[in-house]
This record gives sequence, structure tokens and C-alpha cells, in this order.
Amino acid sequence: MESAQRIERDIERLAGPDYTLTDEAIRRYAYTDVYRNTLDYFTHELEALGFEVEQDPVGTLVARNRPKGEPVFGIGSHCDSNRNGGRYDGTMGVVTALEVCRLDKERDLGLPLQLISFLEEEGSGFGQMLLGSRIVAQRVTEDDLRERFRSLDDGRSFWECASDAGYRPDRWRDCAHVLDDLTGWIEMHIEQARVLQDSGNRIGLVTAIAGYVHADVTVHGRGDHAGATPMDLRLDPTTVLAEAILELEQLARQAGEGTVGTVGEIEVDPGIINAIAARVRFSLDVRGPVDDAYLGVAREIATFAQQAAERRGMSVEHRERQTLPATPMDGRILDALEAAARATGEQYVRMHSGAAHDTMCVADRVPTAMVFVPCKDGISHHPAEEASAADAALAAEIILEAIRALT
Amino acid sequence: MESAQRIERDIERLAGPDYTLTDEAIRRYAYTDVYRNTLDYFTHELEALGFEVEQDPVGTLVARNRPKGEPVFGIGSHCDSNRNGGRYDGTMGVVTALEVCRLDKERDLGLPLQLISFLEEEGSGFGQMLLGSRIVAQRVTEDDLRERFRSLDDGRSFWECASDAGYRPDRWRDCAHVLDDLTGWIEMHIEQARVLQDSGNRIGLVTAIAGYVHADVTVHGRGDHAGATPMDLRLDPTTVLAEAILELEQLARQAGEGTVGTVGEIEVDPGIINAIAARVRFSLDVRGPVDDAYLGVAREIATFAQQAAERRGMSVEHRERQTLPATPMDGRILDALEAAARATGEQYVRMHSGAAHDTMCVADRVPTAMVFVPCKDGISHHPAEEASAADAALAAEIILEAIRALT
Repeated sequence: MESAQRIERDIERLAGPDYTLTDEAIRRYAYTDVYRNTLDYFTHELEALGFEVEQDPVGTLVARNRPKGEPVFGIGSHCDSNRNGGRYDGTMGVVTALEVCRLDKERDLGLPLQLISFLEEEGSGFGQMLLGSRIVAQRVTEDDLRERFRSLDDGRSFWECASDAGYRPDRWRDCAHVLDDLTGWIEMHIEQARVLQDSGNRIGLVTAIAGYVHADVTVHGRGDHAGATPMDLRLDPTTVLAEAILELEQLARQAGEGTVGTVGEIEVDPGIINAIAARVRFSLDVRGPVDDAYLGVAREIATFAQQAAERRGMSVEHRERQTLPATPMDGRILDALEAAARATGEQYVRMHSGAAHDTMCVADRVPTAMVFVPCKDGISHHPAEEASAADAALAAEIILEAIRALT
Repeated sequence: MESAQRIERDIERLAGPDYTLTDEAIRRYAYTDVYRNTLDYFTHELEALGFEVEQDPVGTLVARNRPKGEPVFGIGSHCDSNRNGGRYDGTMGVVTALEVCRLDKERDLGLPLQLISFLEEEGSGFGQMLLGSRIVAQRVTEDDLRERFRSLDDGRSFWECASDAGYRPDRWRDCAHVLDDLTGWIEMHIEQARVLQDSGNRIGLVTAIAGYVHADVTVHGRGDHAGATPMDLRLDPTTVLAEAILELEQLARQAGEGTVGTVGEIEVDPGIINAIAARVRFSLDVRGPVDDAYLGVAREIATFAQQAAERRGMSVEHRERQTLPATPMDGRILDALEAAARATGEQYVRMHSGAAHDTMCVADRVPTAMVFVPCKDGISHHPAEEASAADAALAAEIILEAIRALT
């Protein structure tokens, strides 16, 4: 059987009723039966290839074809989905990593491999993105796990949910050992945007994962009657929102270097047709692969919003949610991937990743890279998500060859 | 007792626990016990002055000091509130009309008076503003009353609710008779904006009630990943929203003539920090006392939104909710009110009403005018609403003198 067929079959299987909580989308997250079934499937397939498979103390799947302590090259992704997800985001990366293991065995290459499927990348279970890889990277606190991170379904703590599922959250510090033997790491993922499709490339070699600033701006105006209040007597916070949206667009374009800026949430209080808003809150998502560039835009838009409000007699509050620096990928692994890609004769491009990935956490300790495949019309996090098994097979081939060159 | 004291006492009483469904605000609407208590209070006070009091077939209160068929001058307002209302909106107008009746009797003037307290001006019961006066003006259909207008509390039809409360919705066409004997009409109301306060006037003489266009604009963009989608590949509908908000502000200012424009509702789909919106809906509220001016702005902003979207490769849908023309007040009544206001030596100003009032419906058949009193900081439709009994007493004096001059 060809790689593409095996990948197609795995994707098809993992979209079946045993692997999703709803038939309207892929909905799969930690400690559900359907998530357990998914890990069981990968475990079964990997054991058939002679891998030793285990889970870390909270449920990240780790499979290796060498004894612990021996150097291995890491491959993998995540196999949870967002709540209204498609078949490919994450899962296709694990399936492709599995295909690399199959090819290694089929061709009797004997590469030292470790496959990882991280827990809770999407945050569907506890509202915490990259949760499994952050635990591996020890980027959480015990208080986060015991108290702060809570199930979106029933409000119980991560700690309680993990314990009830048979895991050992009390041993979360041991999760760091997942990375102990890795000499390198490559994650394959769908692109989740239109760059590859629109530029006619089948493969993206990720040079850096964008860092980002997430923040909220609240503009305090004055809620007045929309009919009775003359234009000159208004303190309408939607005007500051409007100026900020357009300014953010300009600032991101001017900054270049792949910087992007988005206002994705807008909340108007009271939000009725015949009332001037008293208050508007909007979110800022500013990203890019070059820290100086996007951090500059994040600072400038915050200053702009404040000044725009003051010019109109209003005030703003600016609250940062989270800032995460950009993660450069490893040059040596990138070069190996590029050589392998070039050898296939297929179109590829170096690009950055605007989206966050588990690889950001792996990169704390291990040289890393990522490979993207196109995703139809850029649609992701949606049942209409679509990617090609042939592209994934091509990625598997390239990753396999790169690891051969690197190990 | 002075007029201001009586007005203060009435307002105080009607803010008590028998007259509101909650102690956190005034919440009073049709067919509730607290609304019935309010009508009972006015009935009792008016009967004590020798008025004959009745209710029309759906519950608008009508009191007169002349037999039916004889000409009378109308005064009044409404005594329902919005659901999170204050003590003054509407109720102070009825209380002031009652005070006019008291002064007429006290001074033995023998003016021919008819007091009206319209049902459901705020729409708190059935989501239909000016409902009682629209029924009186026959601006509704039987289907509206039987089927379309439904209780916000339990979804039952207006028809069923009115019947259960002992009224006769089947006789709704007879409600038109409420206006049969009126030679004129003056409604007193709080301003609900800051024009009087900020200009230092105690009295506003309303020259026209603004007409308005209510509409919705939906911008269809493309929902993409906020991190992964370069600025050049975006179809972000929030940018069209932003341009439209700023253009509406400009258009309304340029149009002058009291024209105002407001975006009060903004709905972003999906509305999450890390997703470019697929769709944005926003409301338009465009008003003014001069039809040509505000209708022009409403047309121009609709065209602008469409062109702004097209420039960016997106599309819009424009859906009109309601258009109501401006209502000019009667020149003769206005002149009589102005003469009476001037005689008091107090500061007054001619102005238009940006808000809608029952008087718009009365004006279909009767020469009308309105008198405004200041409302602290323009706050209305809120428990913090505040107005002065002394200003209301001044209004009562002016209305009384105007009616003396007119009858």
C-alpha cells in the first residue's frame, strides 16, 4: 500500500464515530473515551512496528524504537481537536509521523525515532492551548494544574480530571523527561492559511513560529440616547474602536516582516440599536516571526488607542493577556529538510508559521523544525477543513530523508 | 402645597414597592399588578378633581372634565417604564399633566381638559414601542395584535394577555375614539439628553420629533486564522465596519439640521481573539427632525458601506428595519407655549426631540406640541435617571397658561 493510501485510511478511520463526540465535526479532547480510542489506535499501530509505547504522567503519548537513554529523533504533533474541528489539524501530523515510522520499518532503515502525540494542543478540554507541551516544557505551575485550569465541561480542575482518568498529575514534573533523549524534532501540520495554496507550493518549511501579543482594549465613553444626543455632545467609544481597527491594519502592513494584527472580538455595552455605547471592549492579536516588528506594533496600537480616546475626551484601559516570543527553527534541520524537499522535485517554500504549535515548547530544549502542507482555502478549525493525503505522504518522505541525513 | 411638592410626592409614591416589579429599578409594564396600581393611583387622584376616568379597550387611561363629544385639550404621556428604568421617563409627564388638572381646579379656571396615559410606550411588555398610541392611531393591524406582538415574559400574544387582563382587544378599533374630542395636545417629558442641562435652560419647546431610519448592515468577509493569514490575503469585515463608523460620523455632521447617526449594535462572528471575523453585523440608527437630511445620510451610509466592502473584495447586505418620518409640532401651540414660557422669566429654548414619543401618533389627527425638562447628565432608561420637580412644576405652569390662551 502506498503512503498516501495509508494516511488516507488513518484519517478516515479517526473521523469515525468512535473517535469524535459529535458526527457534525471532529470533537476530541483529553480524557474522553473518543480521545482514549485515538491513543489506543496509535498505540496499536506503533506496537505493530515494534515501538515501545507509553504515556507520560498526564497522557502525552510517547513511542520509541530505541530503549530509554539512547538518542532518538522526535516526530509528531497532537491528536486532539478543537470543539468544532476538522479531520486534519493535528491528527494528520501524528498520522504522518506514524507513516514515517512505517516507512522506516518497510525500508529497513533502522532510524532512531520517537513519536510524540501531545495532549490538549487546542485547549478544548480546559481552555488552555498547548497544554500538554507546556507541561512537558514545565511552562505551567502546580497551582495552574491543581486550581486554575478547569474543565470547560464541568468546571472540575485539571488535577481532578486527570486523576479520575487514571493519570498521575502529582508526577507532572516527570513529564519533562519526554524530551530527554531527543536529538531533534520535526512536526508536520496543515498550514491553516492560504499561503501554500495561493502560491502553488505543496510543502512549507517553517523558518520560525510567530510570537504574539494578546491584549484587550476597553474604551470608556458615555452611554446616551442615540436619537436625543447631538453629534457634538457624544462620547461614542465605537469611533475609537473604528480608528484603532484601521490604524492596526496600517501599522501591521508598515511593519512588514510577516507581522499581522487582528481585532477578533468586539463587545459593545449596552449594544442596542438606539443607544450610544457606554463602553466597547475589543481584542488585539498581534503576531509575527520577528519579535521587534510585532512587539513594536503591539506597543504602537496601544498608544494610538489611548491617544485616539483622549482626543475625543474618552479614556481606555489596556490589559495584556499573554505575550509569547517568536520561536526560530533550527538551521541545520531546516537545511536537511530543504535538501530532501529539493530532491523530490516538488514545489516547496520557506515560510513562517503564524499559528502557535507544540513545537514552540519542544524548542525550549531541542533543535526543532516544522513542515507544512496546504489546507484547502485556508479553512481550519472547522468541519470543512481539507488537506491532501498525497501532500502528507510527500511530507513523510521529506521528513524521513531529513532524519536519515541528520542521524 | 406647592406644585413642585405635589409632583415630588407623586413621583416618590410611584417609585414605591407597589409600583415596580423590582426595587433595583422602575420596572412597570402593561397588565402587571404594579401597572394596574399606577393607573389606579391616577384614577383616584383625577376622580377627586371631578374627572370622569375610563380606559380604552386595551388599557390606555383617559380622563376628562367635560362630557364626551365636547371639545377638550389633551395633556399627558405614559406611565410604563423600560425594564431597567428610572422614575421620570413618562411618569413625570403624566404627573405633570395631573398637576395641570389640579391647578385648573385650584384656580377655578374651568379649562376643558383630557388627560391621557398611553399604554406600553417603552415596549417592555411586548417589545413594541409606542404600542398604546399606535393602537389609538390605528397604526397596527389586527394580525399584529392577535399574532405578531408577543409577551417578552411568556411568548403569549398581546391579544391573549389583554383579554386575560379583562380588556377587549377585539374592540381595538374603538381606541381611535380616544382622540375624537381633542382640539390640541401637549406632552411633557424629560429630555433624555444633555442639551438643556449643558445650555442652562429649564424648558425645551419641541419644534419637531425626529424621524428615523433603523437598519442593519452585514459585511461578509472570510473567517481565517488570525496568526497564519498575511495582511494581503485577508478579507476582514471589521475594517469595513470601522470605515462605516467613521463615515457615518462625518456624514451626520455634514448633514447638520440636527441629524445624528449611531452604530449601537456590533456582532462579530465568530468573535474570538485569534480568528479574523467571517462576518460582522452592525446596526444603523440615523435620525433628525428634517426628513431630507437624515434620509440622505441613511442612503449615503448604505452606499458607502457597499462600496467600502467592494473596494476590499467583500460584500454587504443592507436590511431596513423601520423608517418613520419626522413629526413637526403645531406652530400655534408652540407660540402659545413660548409666550407662556417667556412670561415666567425662566430660560427656555426651542429644540427638536431626537427620541420618539407617543405625541408622534397623536399628531396624525390633532395639533400637538411637547415640553421638555432637563434630565441630569442626560441619563435615562436607567435607575440613575434624575429630573427636577421644580422644573416639572414650571412646565405645568407654562402648559396651563398655553391652554388658557388656546381654548
